[in-house]
Amino acid sequence: MDEITRLKRDLVIANRILAQQNVLDAYGHVSMRHPHRQDRYFLARSLSPAIVEDSDIIEFHLDGTPVDANENRSLYLERFIHGGVYERRADVKAVLHSHAEDVLPFTISKSVRLRPVIHTTGDMGSDIPVWDISRNFGDATTLLVTNMAHGRDLATCLDCHRMALMRGHGFVFAGRTINDLVRICVYIPRNARVQINAMRMGEFIALSEGEINARFELDPDSPAMKRGWEFWAKEAGVGHLLDS
Amino acid sequence: MDEITRLKRDLVIANRILAQQNVLDAYGHVSMRHPHRQDRYFLARSLSPAIVEDSDIIEFHLDGTPVDANENRSLYLERFIHGGVYERRADVKAVLHSHAEDVLPFTISKSVRLRPVIHTTGDMGSDIPVWDISRNFGDATTLLVTNMAHGRDLATCLDCHRMALMRGHGFVFAGRTINDLVRICVYIPRNARVQINAMRMGEFIALSEGEINARFELDPDSPAMKRGWEFWAKEAGVGHLLDS
Amino acid sequence: MDEITRLKRDLVIANRILAQQNVLDAYGHVSMRHPHRQDRYFLARSLSPAIVEDSDIIEFHLDGTPVDANENRSLYLERFIHGGVYERRADVKAVLHSHAEDVLPFTISKSVRLRPVIHTTGDMGSDIPVWDISRNFGDATTLLVTNMAHGRDLATCLDCHRMALMRGHGFVFAGRTINDLVRICVYIPRNARVQINAMRMGEFIALSEGEINARFELDPDSPAMKRGWEFWAKEAGVGHLLDS
Amino acid sequence: MDEITRLKRDLVIANRILAQQNVLDAYGHVSMRHPHRQDRYFLARSLSPAIVEDSDIIEFHLDGTPVDANENRSLYLERFIHGGVYERRADVKAVLHSHAEDVLPFTISKSVRLRPVIHTTGDMGSDIPVWDISRNFGDATTLLVTNMAHGRDLATCLDCHRMALMRGHGFVFAGRTINDLVRICVYIPRNARVQINAMRMGEFIALSEGEINARFELDPDSPAMKRGWEFWAKEAGVGHLLDS
Repeated sequence: MDEITRLKRDLVIANRILAQQNVLDAYGHVSMRHPHRQDRYFLARSLSPAIVEDSDIIEFHLDGTPVDANENRSLYLERFIHGGVYERRADVKAVLHSHAEDVLPFTISKSVRLRPVIHTTGDMGSDIPVWDISRNFGDATTLLVTNMAHGRDLATCLDCHRMALMRGHGFVFAGRTINDLVRICVYIPRNARVQINAMRMGEFIALSEGEINARFELDPDSPAMKRGWEFWAKEAGVGHLLDS
Repeated sequence: MDEITRLKRDLVIANRILAQQNVLDAYGHVSMRHPHRQDRYFLARSLSPAIVEDSDIIEFHLDGTPVDANENRSLYLERFIHGGVYERRADVKAVLHSHAEDVLPFTISKSVRLRPVIHTTGDMGSDIPVWDISRNFGDATTLLVTNMAHGRDLATCLDCHRMALMRGHGFVFAGRTINDLVRICVYIPRNARVQINAMRMGEFIALSEGEINARFELDPDSPAMKRGWEFWAKEAGVGHLLDS
Repeated sequence: MDEITRLKRDLVIANRILAQQNVLDAYGHVSMRHPHRQDRYFLARSLSPAIVEDSDIIEFHLDGTPVDANENRSLYLERFIHGGVYERRADVKAVLHSHAEDVLPFTISKSVRLRPVIHTTGDMGSDIPVWDISRNFGDATTLLVTNMAHGRDLATCLDCHRMALMRGHGFVFAGRTINDLVRICVYIPRNARVQINAMRMGEFIALSEGEINARFELDPDSPAMKRGWEFWAKEAGVGHLLDS
Repeated sequence: MDEITRLKRDLVIANRILAQQNVLDAYGHVSMRHPHRQDRYFLARSLSPAIVEDSDIIEFHLDGTPVDANENRSLYLERFIHGGVYERRADVKAVLHSHAEDVLPFTISKSVRLRPVIHTTGDMGSDIPVWDISRNFGDATTLLVTNMAHGRDLATCLDCHRMALMRGHGFVFAGRTINDLVRICVYIPRNARVQINAMRMGEFIALSEGEINARFELDPDSPAMKRGWEFWAKEAGVGHLLDS
């Protein structure tokens, strides 16, 4: 199997894992940058992640146009989230847009910020900005990121961080590798629940800056970090795609 | 397949999706207005939604009487909810009555109103009234809507809105199309959970009037809006009914 | 099938439904009084409810002794809960002992009482006492009901009510029929969750005395009340036992 | 089947049960001490517990070195948790390290301690210390227990108790037998949820010292205590390993 085919297959596995682990549902999407072309990325056609297959993966220019001019299948309306982030951040190799339910309260809270409180999510970083589409686009939008102006504005808010919340909508996550993104995003809703439940009982302790930095220094594709990927792929019914 | 057979099949799919997505359980029901007869609607015989099939769909007059005078199967005791709404609201094409658990706290709260806080439920509208059966029928009812007087009173409370809560019982939702109803009702319990969890942490931001209106202007049967329907039908084991 | 065989089969169905609906887990048990002998009841041998079969049902005297003197299988340590209630309450035909998780907070709360807040649980009654084993048996017990003195003390606390909470342990429920018990007990954990979530948001409205009484007057074995039984039996994989 | 093979099979069953019951997920691990060599223990190779099989069980020295010098498979980075506890506590026969989500809020709370509040977890003991790796190893660790110094420090904190929480990470549990450990650990997350929910409503009653001691005196491998093990093994798809 050639490199590009292998990478697209990994993107299929990522779609399936994130759906099976309730990070994505009927909506939301995950992409991967082209390994040799910084100005292109791979993303499925408009389809629920749990049923994405190899043939559903499409190659895009950063502006959201399919590379194949004859491509005529339906496309995700919000694919500009991905292009916006890849354009601004050369270090990012994979992008997720999710509506994971337990993160949503933090997107609408006026007083509380999401913080890394458990070791598995230390590398989501200490500062997680909240993007409110109404700031630059007025208060009569559908909240959807439907063009490059929206996508670039979101990427500006994300800036150098790993994750940005989107008010009343969801979040975007920027991965160093596809496995890095999948592993941490499986644990982000858990981190959100733990923080909410700890707050119910009074004050809580978040990870320190030193601990967050130490987590960043772990190799995101070491065997321990890939244990989840292999197990979750089996859980999602795509274990046979791991070795092919 | 003729038009009526196709529509009844869509109603079967709606029953199965709403059950699989925990909007309906052993109880609750969903109906669809007849496409050519404003004074008739389709609703299953008395049966749990997860096991409804084509042959279970019955055609009713608005007063809850089956069109077929020989119909002798058990009927939902609360079918008057549907007739009440169709009678008052010519624009409504589908009606749901649900006891979805996470909406119930809002039906008994003395101080808090359910509000759209996430983009997917923006079109549930900014004002969601609470109907209390005791207001006009006294405090010794079973809380059930068992006749047209009950049904009309509930519809009066619903008025021009999309949704009315029913105190200590559940809610009614009025859809523009069956897909419109199914999509938003899958997300209503999630909206309720997000609001409760955000309130735990302090003040929260609901969708603005402009955002709610913008969501209403989206085509409820566009490909993006139908992505859920197709995926959820497969999840519910009735994907084969989609193309038949 | 003779009457007793049919009733024992219903008890198997009840075990399976209550397990599948998370009212019972590996532990907890449900019994049924003998239809012709007020002084006997049926209960499974010591086995998790999800795997109980016809041959596991044993006939007991009210004191917890098997009617068959040769019975040598392991018995539930807490079977005295059942005998205690049947002895005191001639009107009771079925008894459940459950540890359903969402009811447990109400068993240890110093300030809040469980109340019927949704229509489906109106007939759990307006007053639900809490039995604390330490009151009469000291503060060094295992909290288990392991003899008739414990069982009778619990039944005295239950008195004329439908349900008694057991501090730090679970609850006991007294049914008019096995279907009556199963239906309402499926909804009791939901009622508990709704009350907790409503309380989080401020004051709430419980059912009125008149509404509770109206719910009691519904026939517990009417077709509408049995819709759950039939559906849940199918969900639990024992639909084939319904018609046999 | 010889004794060692039988014990290793029990460890496989324990892995499967704890995964199926959500005490372990892709990460976390459970071990068992060698029955004749206090200085050795059994633990799986680096693998998600839900897919552990007989051939994955490895025999270790207490310092975390495999007994078989030719062993070259990946090992759990945090296996030193197990050796640390076995070294300090001769009475301990099985050790679990878990990240069970609902226990985590108690690991980061500044004001609230986890307490036994339900009868099934009485024998987790009245005092459950919280180990904070930063106390002795600084605030720039990954929070992982990756060497014997970490493992011994954790064991010192555990001291004579059954359970120690690990700040922002999880917990360690010390079992008298493998069944003892599995049974109580299935209920620990439930105990955590009940305590959180009861605290939401005001003050609550925990088990008394006398009740905790009474629970300790129950035989951890009596038929009633093993009812869970047998049922959960079937639920986890390894019922056939019980009798082999």
